[in-house]
Amino acid sequence: MPSSPIRKLSPLANEAKKQGVKVYHLNIGQPDLPTPQQALDALGRIDRKTLEYSPSEGYPFLRDKLVKYYAKFGIDITPAEIIVTTGGSEALLFSFMACMDPGDEMIMVEPGYANYISFARTAGIKVKTVTSRIEDGFALPSMEAFEKAITPRTKAILLCNPNNPTGYVYSPAELQTLKELVIKYNLFLIADEVYREFVYSGQPYQSAMTLGIPDNVILVDSVSKRYSECGIRIGMLVTHNKLVHDTVMKYCQARLSPPLLGQIVAEASIEGTEAYAKECFDEYKARRDFFIKGLNEIPGVYSPKPEGAFYTVVELPVADAEDFCRWCLTDFRLNGETVMMAPAAGFYSNPELGKNQVRMAYVLKIEDLAKALEVLKAALIKYQELH
Amino acid sequence: MPSSPIRKLSPLANEAKKQGVKVYHLNIGQPDLPTPQQALDALGRIDRKTLEYSPSEGYPFLRDKLVKYYAKFGIDITPAEIIVTTGGSEALLFSFMACMDPGDEMIMVEPGYANYISFARTAGIKVKTVTSRIEDGFALPSMEAFEKAITPRTKAILLCNPNNPTGYVYSPAELQTLKELVIKYNLFLIADEVYREFVYSGQPYQSAMTLGIPDNVILVDSVSKRYSECGIRIGMLVTHNKLVHDTVMKYCQARLSPPLLGQIVAEASIEGTEAYAKECFDEYKARRDFFIKGLNEIPGVYSPKPEGAFYTVVELPVADAEDFCRWCLTDFRLNGETVMMAPAAGFYSNPELGKNQVRMAYVLKIEDLAKALEVLKAALIKYQELH
Repeated sequence: MPSSPIRKLSPLANEAKKQGVKVYHLNIGQPDLPTPQQALDALGRIDRKTLEYSPSEGYPFLRDKLVKYYAKFGIDITPAEIIVTTGGSEALLFSFMACMDPGDEMIMVEPGYANYISFARTAGIKVKTVTSRIEDGFALPSMEAFEKAITPRTKAILLCNPNNPTGYVYSPAELQTLKELVIKYNLFLIADEVYREFVYSGQPYQSAMTLGIPDNVILVDSVSKRYSECGIRIGMLVTHNKLVHDTVMKYCQARLSPPLLGQIVAEASIEGTEAYAKECFDEYKARRDFFIKGLNEIPGVYSPKPEGAFYTVVELPVADAEDFCRWCLTDFRLNGETVMMAPAAGFYSNPELGKNQVRMAYVLKIEDLAKALEVLKAALIKYQELH
Repeated sequence: MPSSPIRKLSPLANEAKKQGVKVYHLNIGQPDLPTPQQALDALGRIDRKTLEYSPSEGYPFLRDKLVKYYAKFGIDITPAEIIVTTGGSEALLFSFMACMDPGDEMIMVEPGYANYISFARTAGIKVKTVTSRIEDGFALPSMEAFEKAITPRTKAILLCNPNNPTGYVYSPAELQTLKELVIKYNLFLIADEVYREFVYSGQPYQSAMTLGIPDNVILVDSVSKRYSECGIRIGMLVTHNKLVHDTVMKYCQARLSPPLLGQIVAEASIEGTEAYAKECFDEYKARRDFFIKGLNEIPGVYSPKPEGAFYTVVELPVADAEDFCRWCLTDFRLNGETVMMAPAAGFYSNPELGKNQVRMAYVLKIEDLAKALEVLKAALIKYQELH
């Protein structure tokens, strides 16, 4: 089991904090934006006497609201096709286990969300990667690249759109390529779309659920990022495929139920938060514009301009980005401050790739991003002097 | 993946309820007792603006309190040895994955908590069972029975004490037998002790954590039952074994964090709830006394007197208890009421065993248990007429 590249340096960050050092967390997609007030208010209104198990598939009150939410994105589903999970994490794990047997293969684009590989490992699934490249802005690899990776054991393609860690938003044309592959090789398309609200290009965003291959698509979703409520651990698994749904339900019954309190908060977050969503969107867009420009102004640093989510994969002028990330936490301080980044190598399965890259999340307010950029710039100068 | 015997008949129960039938739930350990008021009050006092991810291992504020709680049971641990999980369910799954490789074997007593087998299946672990028998009151099988089940692939023994589904409480002498086995064959002892507060015999209860084999024992725990807060999904994995701890942490980091809100409720439940705990204990003891006596008064029904937890495995005068359970939900009503029970066959791996048994939970108030007993008695008479 690999360590999470996002969290494995946390002990070093904690050590630095104990010494009184201020650490800017660019490593983790933990938004600093507030949870919607109406969702927080819902907590104070709970009048249950017993905090009991919820149904394994989640409460109808939440699934009913989600149906209306999805309709806004052209996703036409029924409450019975939605399963509430303990975060998007659990939806991923259960989709892998339901769609594949141990030893089966799944294809994903690298760099990819590191925990996909952890969950695949848990499910005994072999992950094969096709590589997207920073010089192409991390666009979808070619159909041929996918076909080269397909074997008789291939059962699924996993797509994160908008992408974590690259921020890339796959176009409708790229989704068509995937649809062709899915049909041609009879595959599942597991679509992690938790960042669908954060697409900055102004271009249309297409959900895999609207591709016209209802039995092939499993949608993985979460309220964590869109309502800035990562801690409530509420995600969803949505599919028209009845057999997949019923198999996932067996795993859901084994773990008994998703968190009750999180379901109450999530339900209270969905309706009447249009203004909130607009504010969050504008804020992230402004942060992206500021942060990517600032990164590219640092000598030797390169980041493509991501069109979605709130991450970017950045090339640094260092040979070993993990060593640099560690050193920032253990040795470097600028006015008592430092930065924490996630080494990007952990997002690639090919050990030769991503060594000079890091993933950064722009989830801090602009004044903090500005300071983090200053720290990063100074750290790079100092580190290059030493190496 | 097997279906949960506890929940798989839920669709039939829902159908009955839609028809206006009152269903007494003896199938699931969902206590009807209230959550401690101070824990509910804590929800109203949350003044966070962002419901953010918590540390993967859980908040120190909760782990610190748990240390004091465990000390009351003679369990001497540090906060760093406690990992907060998403319910005891996740602690079980992670302990299996951390202690064993796919293909390894784990021994458990049958009848056993059905979801153990589901989690083992998830982890690719082969479960071997040694059988405890209703005629022995479900006491621990002999050392020889365990040794017959041990192979070179055996890595762990899983013990639920007090036991779910049988309510049996293993004696210190029985624990010594397990200790000998664990040492002799170099095994892990995974101890699920979530019902430790509910031991009615007046006899001393020993935790596996006090057996003097610190590197072998992994304690699985949960606040669900002891504070009647199953829905918050907060459990714990506790071990002195550093390698197991660190491996579990990798799984914890992949799933990011346990539920934040549940941690706040759990923390508020631990101190100052002695009177609450006493009330719950007395209530369950009274229910047990009433329910077991009532069961044994129904012709052809036999239940041992369980000394712990709030379950019992009961022999019914029917050939196929699952068919009987289904029939109760679909066809039988007494004054518009029926009962839901969990067929016990799902708690055995040997398909020949438990066919005429059900698991019942006495988590309803005595007046409801009385009505459930009436319904059961009438249902058995009617069912026997028809078969």
